[in-house]
Amino acid sequence: MKLQLPKGTRDFAPREKLARDKIVARLTCIFQSYGFMPLETPSFERWEVLSAKYAGGAEILNETFRFTDQGGRELALRYDLTVPLARYVAMNPQLKMPFKRYAIGKVFRDGPIKLGRYREFYQCDVDTIGAASMLADAECIRLGNAVFNELGIKAVYSVNNRKVLEALLAKGGVPKEKLIDAMLTLDKLEKVGLDNVQKELAEKGIPESSVTFVVALREKSNEEKLEAIKQELGEEAIKELTELFSYLEGVPIDFNPALSRGLAYYTSTVFEAFAQNSKVTSSLSGGGRYDNMIGGLVGRGDIPAVGVSFGLEPILDVLKEQGLEEAGVVQLYVVPIRTMKESAGIAEQLRAAGINVALDLKGRSISKNLEYANSEGIPFVVIVGPKELEAGTVKLRDMKAGTEAELSVEEVAQRVKAAR
Amino acid sequence: MKLQLPKGTRDFAPREKLARDKIVARLTCIFQSYGFMPLETPSFERWEVLSAKYAGGAEILNETFRFTDQGGRELALRYDLTVPLARYVAMNPQLKMPFKRYAIGKVFRDGPIKLGRYREFYQCDVDTIGAASMLADAECIRLGNAVFNELGIKAVYSVNNRKVLEALLAKGGVPKEKLIDAMLTLDKLEKVGLDNVQKELAEKGIPESSVTFVVALREKSNEEKLEAIKQELGEEAIKELTELFSYLEGVPIDFNPALSRGLAYYTSTVFEAFAQNSKVTSSLSGGGRYDNMIGGLVGRGDIPAVGVSFGLEPILDVLKEQGLEEAGVVQLYVVPIRTMKESAGIAEQLRAAGINVALDLKGRSISKNLEYANSEGIPFVVIVGPKELEAGTVKLRDMKAGTEAELSVEEVAQRVKAAR
Repeated sequence: MKLQLPKGTRDFAPREKLARDKIVARLTCIFQSYGFMPLETPSFERWEVLSAKYAGGAEILNETFRFTDQGGRELALRYDLTVPLARYVAMNPQLKMPFKRYAIGKVFRDGPIKLGRYREFYQCDVDTIGAASMLADAECIRLGNAVFNELGIKAVYSVNNRKVLEALLAKGGVPKEKLIDAMLTLDKLEKVGLDNVQKELAEKGIPESSVTFVVALREKSNEEKLEAIKQELGEEAIKELTELFSYLEGVPIDFNPALSRGLAYYTSTVFEAFAQNSKVTSSLSGGGRYDNMIGGLVGRGDIPAVGVSFGLEPILDVLKEQGLEEAGVVQLYVVPIRTMKESAGIAEQLRAAGINVALDLKGRSISKNLEYANSEGIPFVVIVGPKELEAGTVKLRDMKAGTEAELSVEEVAQRVKAAR
Repeated sequence: MKLQLPKGTRDFAPREKLARDKIVARLTCIFQSYGFMPLETPSFERWEVLSAKYAGGAEILNETFRFTDQGGRELALRYDLTVPLARYVAMNPQLKMPFKRYAIGKVFRDGPIKLGRYREFYQCDVDTIGAASMLADAECIRLGNAVFNELGIKAVYSVNNRKVLEALLAKGGVPKEKLIDAMLTLDKLEKVGLDNVQKELAEKGIPESSVTFVVALREKSNEEKLEAIKQELGEEAIKELTELFSYLEGVPIDFNPALSRGLAYYTSTVFEAFAQNSKVTSSLSGGGRYDNMIGGLVGRGDIPAVGVSFGLEPILDVLKEQGLEEAGVVQLYVVPIRTMKESAGIAEQLRAAGINVALDLKGRSISKNLEYANSEGIPFVVIVGPKELEAGTVKLRDMKAGTEAELSVEEVAQRVKAAR
């Protein structure tokens, strides 16, 4: 038998996993600083939940891993974290609104494997359920901005409101049945350029002139865009955007009236951020308001909802581009020389002092051990020989400096901690 | 459609999930202090890997969730973290030995639902691959002991060596083909008492006299047991145990010569810990040495391996018994009074100061908001009124003391941080 991974899945080797865990910890810290609490739902759901109307849609259902349990119940691996959130909200009517939760977990899609697409991957979602105020939308964007600041990533959210875009396109002359088509094409403006957008509109039979107004806004500042749209549609049409922007003072955003974020279930606010000066082309974060979806799924009328999602993979790729170092955990390596028992005790003493300590478990020679410590990037080695033990000391080797010193165990702990 | 969970699965509500995450963070910290690094493998594996000889065994395969991908490949949800570890070791021959890894992840079993048994649950595994020395076994027990100390749980590892037990039973007169049967029965000695053990042995046709020596050891101290076994079997037979105990000086352990840990794949050292003075009857942690399994699975002869596993559920149950409080994350709740925009800014300022802040997103009245903060256990509320804003202050309410003070935002940050 040839041992291999399932197609489209990955192992995360120790250093890679450690780097991922560190980023997740920093995201979690920021999510909590905005008052979001964690929620965990199972990795699989009943098929009838995942395939319900208002859930993922036909396309995503074709990519869902399905199976049955021994009782013959139809189950499926979750394809996102939003449908399970909706199910949780529906099953827990006692929840106090707004319900603010984050979820970081694996989701699964049995789709074609392209560059950077996997059949098992992480989603990091932050959602506020039950608050209609644009304050909730602003909080998502502020939180995302805080994430980029924390990680030292240059990225700015493009922001729009779908209702405004729809109104502009309708007024420009896009027939109602072609609104979605026009939005999907226009969404690509930044990526593919005006020429290609015009070509695609022509193919779809949408008059080029119907998007002229939106396209022309590109040259203007955020304030000028808003003013121009106000002139075109009236003050009421830009009410949500005006309110949203008022809550975002001091936050760098780019008002992009062409943005719609594809086929997703968003109803008004949409936003999305890409890394600047980077080869990473996937969006680092995106989100928006989706007031129909949860209510539709649970059959309770509209339930206001807004959320922001982060891509762990593209964020890691950007950080690696910026020189993220994948380090190990071991700060000190203990090498016994016929002093196994005493060395085990010394290792324990150093751990109790708060140091991450590994101990040679294979009885290798000093030179082999130093080679190992060096190749693993362990900064300090302690050599425990019988002679030094008698004198109440051990030998500490600073691997970077190449220096050695005879010290007590307490002194070793101080040195190693001071060097961190 | 009635929305419901798949049978045997659970949602972890925010406070429960937060408590679980905190414990996982503390376990992780200790695992790393012993020089273990994280490894993450996919949630599912190829069926041929999970069902290979030396993997889980027929019993567990009957409880495995199976499915196929669109390419017709047979897959299955992992039932443990050990087989994926073995596959990872086999696929990565460049790994430096010993390979010390921890893994905390969900595993899946489509089995009958009894009290406290779930179809999706967490395993927390710590394993050292490629080290034959009893130092590695000692490290697992020391690490587990450190976990209990850190969490304030009273638990002591029972420790044994299967080779010693087998030799004692063989010498006592258990026929070779009934060795496993005798071990399984004797393993229950602590739980069901001597009478029941004798009854079961009689049913199995194993002479009661064959376990007399092992049973009689119960009354003795660790040292006396070791000495008695040495007299019975000779010095060579207790070599591993003697070495192991020498590395465990100062660690409270209970040498239990009747322990075998069921049908598992252990080859010599076995250990297991239960909470003392607790209603929680599941083991909190267990492990041992399994030198055949990984080598057998990868077809490379013996590869020494030893590991320790922790049960997140029973550990949480013990901590709850001891009065673990499930707290929220929000430290401060901001209530705007017609000052939405300014309040959003103040909330942001307080978050930047390191405080977890939620903001009223629903425009509720002060009394409704205070009620909400009280019911959520949020310790501080800031009320942002137009009059105070003009004076450059806000009103801070200490929810526990019931006192209020007019303070600057900086002073609020200091007060809240001082109260943590």
